[in-house]
Amino acid sequence: MPRTVSLAVIPGDGIGPEVVAEALKVLDAAVGAAAPDVVFDKVEYRLGAGRYLDDGEVLPAAEFEQIKSADAILLGAVGGTPNDPRLAGANIERGLLLKLRFELDHYVNLRPTVVYPTVESPLRDPGDVDFVVVREGTEGPYVGNGGNIRSGTPHEIANEVSVNTAYGVERIVRFAFGQASARRGKLTLVHKTNVLTFAGGLWKRTVDRVAADFPDVAVDYLHVDAATIFFVTDPARFDVIVTDNLFGDILTDLAGAISGGIGLAASGNINPDGTFPSMFEPVHGSAPDIAGQQKADPTAAILSVALLLEHLGLTDASAKVSAAVRDDIATRTGARPTAEIGDAISRLVLN
Amino acid sequence: MPRTVSLAVIPGDGIGPEVVAEALKVLDAAVGAAAPDVVFDKVEYRLGAGRYLDDGEVLPAAEFEQIKSADAILLGAVGGTPNDPRLAGANIERGLLLKLRFELDHYVNLRPTVVYPTVESPLRDPGDVDFVVVREGTEGPYVGNGGNIRSGTPHEIANEVSVNTAYGVERIVRFAFGQASARRGKLTLVHKTNVLTFAGGLWKRTVDRVAADFPDVAVDYLHVDAATIFFVTDPARFDVIVTDNLFGDILTDLAGAISGGIGLAASGNINPDGTFPSMFEPVHGSAPDIAGQQKADPTAAILSVALLLEHLGLTDASAKVSAAVRDDIATRTGARPTAEIGDAISRLVLN
Ligand SMILES: CC(C)[C@H](C(=O)O)[C@@H](O)C(=O)O
Ligand SMILES: CC(C)[C@H](C(=O)O)[C@@H](O)C(=O)O
Repeated sequence: MPRTVSLAVIPGDGIGPEVVAEALKVLDAAVGAAAPDVVFDKVEYRLGAGRYLDDGEVLPAAEFEQIKSADAILLGAVGGTPNDPRLAGANIERGLLLKLRFELDHYVNLRPTVVYPTVESPLRDPGDVDFVVVREGTEGPYVGNGGNIRSGTPHEIANEVSVNTAYGVERIVRFAFGQASARRGKLTLVHKTNVLTFAGGLWKRTVDRVAADFPDVAVDYLHVDAATIFFVTDPARFDVIVTDNLFGDILTDLAGAISGGIGLAASGNINPDGTFPSMFEPVHGSAPDIAGQQKADPTAAILSVALLLEHLGLTDASAKVSAAVRDDIATRTGARPTAEIGDAISRLVLN
Repeated sequence: MPRTVSLAVIPGDGIGPEVVAEALKVLDAAVGAAAPDVVFDKVEYRLGAGRYLDDGEVLPAAEFEQIKSADAILLGAVGGTPNDPRLAGANIERGLLLKLRFELDHYVNLRPTVVYPTVESPLRDPGDVDFVVVREGTEGPYVGNGGNIRSGTPHEIANEVSVNTAYGVERIVRFAFGQASARRGKLTLVHKTNVLTFAGGLWKRTVDRVAADFPDVAVDYLHVDAATIFFVTDPARFDVIVTDNLFGDILTDLAGAISGGIGLAASGNINPDGTFPSMFEPVHGSAPDIAGQQKADPTAAILSVALLLEHLGLTDASAKVSAAVRDDIATRTGARPTAEIGDAISRLVLN
């Protein structure tokens, strides 16, 4: 009996639809080759800035319910042209992307970084870089708590509250230890404990406590500012990094940059408990300036498919995608149109 | 009649005393050469982790009052060995360094970055980098508002409140526009307006409004995550960056790293109104692992003296220090002991 996987697809804005088209091409190839019993039932949702401009909807309740009942979500990128005045009344990031991450309890935001030998890093000598950032996804400065009083007056006060719970910190820390244990056995907590003493204290104490359950993992701590230094001077030192939502946002863009481009950076917004569907997306944004020109690199979206397949337990299909990307990257010379990259990787998957 | 400048000197911990000794050497040389009418009346304060370990004091009220009445402060670096259990009960950073910055209303934290032609950057091709980060110093996530409830239990909640005021944001933004106007006329606001909508909104609106008073300055905006990408792919694009306390902390360490080492990064914690003394310090920490070995590069401390002299209106003396550092760096070959670097720069100042 074939297994059916319902996949919600949100191509989004800008280059989103282009990279998602290639990602689905590769998905189909990999499933055909390595998981022929599995049927992907794909339902596309037109959400993002474009949709909002059309009918004023950001995430209608009915569509949200349908997405919630899917087995997994593939997302391209959402967001319109920066400073588009027609978008001033909406916050697509908070209303759509963060809403999905928070409501679907994607407490793990998994962001691997590899420097492929043939990809030119902006770093003179990046070394053998292969780490994963385990970014908390449902707490911290991202919760949206806070507000303004006396807005627009000389007496305005704008507060943002970072909320961190023992429950939330422990579950992500345990997940990160699990990753480290399955990798090279090294976990680095990144925070700013000397200044953010309340939140930092909770994170630090939690890591110290959970460490007792993972004697095979060596634990290290870095302040976030110092971590950025090591990202450019010695990124190969990292194996697994665990950090909060905001620091993880910053570090993973930096990681994308040092690994030779955000065009290769994949991510999974994961609910490990399986209560809700997990969501896979490239780290990059919608890049409206190059949209529709077949200039975008779909590799990050394709690698997100590898994460998606792995999450669904389709390990062979996932490995095929990763290997095909690695092989494709190894022979890259100049720029190719988006679809050509997707075609090339699909062919490699089928080999 | 000679002008007397009272200078509070806080050598601090680790490499602090070593780099401060060289900074004072260069200060004396520069004042002798270019401001012979000015007498520096230096008073040293033994503060930091070492002092705390001796007598349990972090910043005694009497010493604080004396420091407050000085004309300026030179600080080396404070902080003990990471994870020293004897320091667990104190927070030298919050109790000393941040206390000085906050109580002395150092709302401008000025951090220039230059990539000197002969210094090897970890970046393959940094380009012609010369920017300054204007970091807010008295608000944002650094205020220390927040707390824990049910600490140590599975129900612990740890909050951190970022507090931003129209008053605080406007004064730093105006300062930054002034800097941009006197430099290459380009100001980049860095924040995370799409997520931290309350604080980000205040910052963005303030920059947009103040921009009207500086028609010669071109204004740009970057999310903090995107800014880190440009720091490694195109740092030469920046002229003046204005940002909050936490983002400024992160970006200036990254800036130090790409410019070839935090050993060159100077900073001024400035109260432009002159109500309280401003404080000048290298961006680097106390590096206890190399303390007392004459291994530290005193250049960042020496460049902090250049900022100090400029702040005091001793422009010629300041220019002499900057030029001497530039000349010294141009001929650097291998590592030299801390004092040798200070001697070399002093000689160049006197030339
Ligand atoms: C678009 C934005 C809300 C998002 C984030 O800050 O998490 C993005 O930067 C990311 O890293 O996925
Ligand atoms: C030591 C620490 C409190 C300080 C900060 O976070 O501001 C340091 O990192 C800096 O940048 O001066």
